[in-house]
Amino acid sequence: MAPGPTVALDGFGAELGFDVLAEGARLAAAEGIGLRVFGPPKELGLDGTDGIEVVPTEERIGNEEDPVAAVRTKKGASVVRAVADVAEGRADAVVSPGSTGATMAAATFGLRRLKGVQRPALAVQLPVPGQRVLFLDVGANVEVRAQHLVQFAYLGAAFSEAVLGVERPRVGLLSVGEESGKGRPEVAEANAILSRGEGVDFVGNVEGRDLPGGTADVVVTDGFTGNVSLKLMEGTAKAVAGAIGEAARSNPLSALGGLLMRPALGGLRRELAPDTTGGAILLGLRGVAVVGHGSSGAEGIANAVRLAARCVEVDAVGRTAALLRDSGAGRGELESGRAARDDA
Amino acid sequence: MAPGPTVALDGFGAELGFDVLAEGARLAAAEGIGLRVFGPPKELGLDGTDGIEVVPTEERIGNEEDPVAAVRTKKGASVVRAVADVAEGRADAVVSPGSTGATMAAATFGLRRLKGVQRPALAVQLPVPGQRVLFLDVGANVEVRAQHLVQFAYLGAAFSEAVLGVERPRVGLLSVGEESGKGRPEVAEANAILSRGEGVDFVGNVEGRDLPGGTADVVVTDGFTGNVSLKLMEGTAKAVAGAIGEAARSNPLSALGGLLMRPALGGLRRELAPDTTGGAILLGLRGVAVVGHGSSGAEGIANAVRLAARCVEVDAVGRTAALLRDSGAGRGELESGRAARDDA
Repeated sequence: MAPGPTVALDGFGAELGFDVLAEGARLAAAEGIGLRVFGPPKELGLDGTDGIEVVPTEERIGNEEDPVAAVRTKKGASVVRAVADVAEGRADAVVSPGSTGATMAAATFGLRRLKGVQRPALAVQLPVPGQRVLFLDVGANVEVRAQHLVQFAYLGAAFSEAVLGVERPRVGLLSVGEESGKGRPEVAEANAILSRGEGVDFVGNVEGRDLPGGTADVVVTDGFTGNVSLKLMEGTAKAVAGAIGEAARSNPLSALGGLLMRPALGGLRRELAPDTTGGAILLGLRGVAVVGHGSSGAEGIANAVRLAARCVEVDAVGRTAALLRDSGAGRGELESGRAARDDA
Repeated sequence: MAPGPTVALDGFGAELGFDVLAEGARLAAAEGIGLRVFGPPKELGLDGTDGIEVVPTEERIGNEEDPVAAVRTKKGASVVRAVADVAEGRADAVVSPGSTGATMAAATFGLRRLKGVQRPALAVQLPVPGQRVLFLDVGANVEVRAQHLVQFAYLGAAFSEAVLGVERPRVGLLSVGEESGKGRPEVAEANAILSRGEGVDFVGNVEGRDLPGGTADVVVTDGFTGNVSLKLMEGTAKAVAGAIGEAARSNPLSALGGLLMRPALGGLRRELAPDTTGGAILLGLRGVAVVGHGSSGAEGIANAVRLAARCVEVDAVGRTAALLRDSGAGRGELESGRAARDDA
């Protein structure tokens, strides 16, 4: 047994293939993180690696399948078994390198929700220059009520403090204007609740342009807006970087300039790479579940495993539960008849 | 009278001041666009300029005021009078350099909606490298029903074809996945309606990362997601460009590289500047209303006036009305009891 936490790793789903996934697993294991990898032993070629146990698994859930239906019927699929490993105490956290939908469904069914949490939310650290911003929900809930947004604020604040080490994280609510009444009705209502709430440092509404700006450490929104925004940021950063590269190739002097700037730009490129931060974390469950970026390289896979291990080491789940309990952020559940339908 | 169209220009609201606004007006007038400028004659200093008439106006609507209330009570405010100029036939189009809310409110009250249009939408050309994408709604309607999204598709397609000269524009619906059922219920429903509809070339759902990618010529979403997305793109492009500048300053070799690249990057900077495209257009009305980018320079002001003039020249309103009529996209109004509440 490795000295650090043990992570159950879904051996399928890495777009770049088994070799890249195995290399990522090796990088993490070399740092003392125990790994149980659910995948085909031969293709993974990890047998005998210190700290890594391969649990032979041939079944997988593909990106083209309906996640909820697939998770319910394919009990032997790698991501379902990896989640069960956590639920049954053989591993401390689960990591899947891809298929966000299947991982969310498997974790939501397989790991119970924290007391008072109506909807788990998917959070990411935004790949922006400089300061890291925790952003949620990026896709677990396309529709939300005000109480859900309020809970996301508490979930995000707890994670930011416990895992990212931000002291008294500033929490912002994404909207179309800074004034408290701006935005959809549920956003305005969440603003009102958070403004009179305790336990988080609520800075009010933030706008799209503030997301990269770091006016808040945690930014909360619904899963539709969050998912669109995350992909838009990635797309825009890529488009701008691509256009700059094109400008550099437009004439010999520019090309020389680009060459001279390359070392300095390398750091920025790493900083902006979506897999630098380890992927998305499903918050609000009684266990740690991380979804890596689908196109992650080995370092990206290792980062996802490291993030999961770190969550275990700092007891992110326990600290989140404590914040929810102390702040009373979960009480909304009792007021709502709709909460029951979330029970799976 | 100038040979071209006449544009009623709100003389207040340019963040950079009257001089910048006046200079923008001069640039547009020099190209044969007639201008009626509503503002303080002395500060504007435009008297005697060929093609420009200053209509003395001292009252304005500030950014801090509630737009709807202000428009209803301040009948003498510059933006209200500029809109009335169009409604009463003295000008062909209205342009305001700032206060999106007040301009939207004034135009929606002052210019009637096209037959069948339930909700006017605010559209922008996205400042992305390469191809221009028309994006709507960026803030007129924070909540929408499926039928509104469908109408936005027709409004956007008509504008793209008539004003931007895109032949058979491809229209995409912004969502969290490409599959037709993905996203909020109203998005899934709009996808179904557009898929069986005629008159627009519907390419299905597009994701956040596709927005800068140019997989569609027109991208449709609700005003909340659209507003957040637009500001996020601007913020991200600025953050990336800023980080690149910082990288260039990080050591002498990089600095030399940055210097050599500067001429090539200048074109890109202009391409990414939010005011290059002339601002946002309110679609779905029986008149042309353009809102410039608040922080526009003189060239940005001129671009907003040019955009408005071009809309008049190509009869954007008439062609939009024709597309709506031929496609039957406006029929949803009759089916909905809620349409009445939009009437002001």
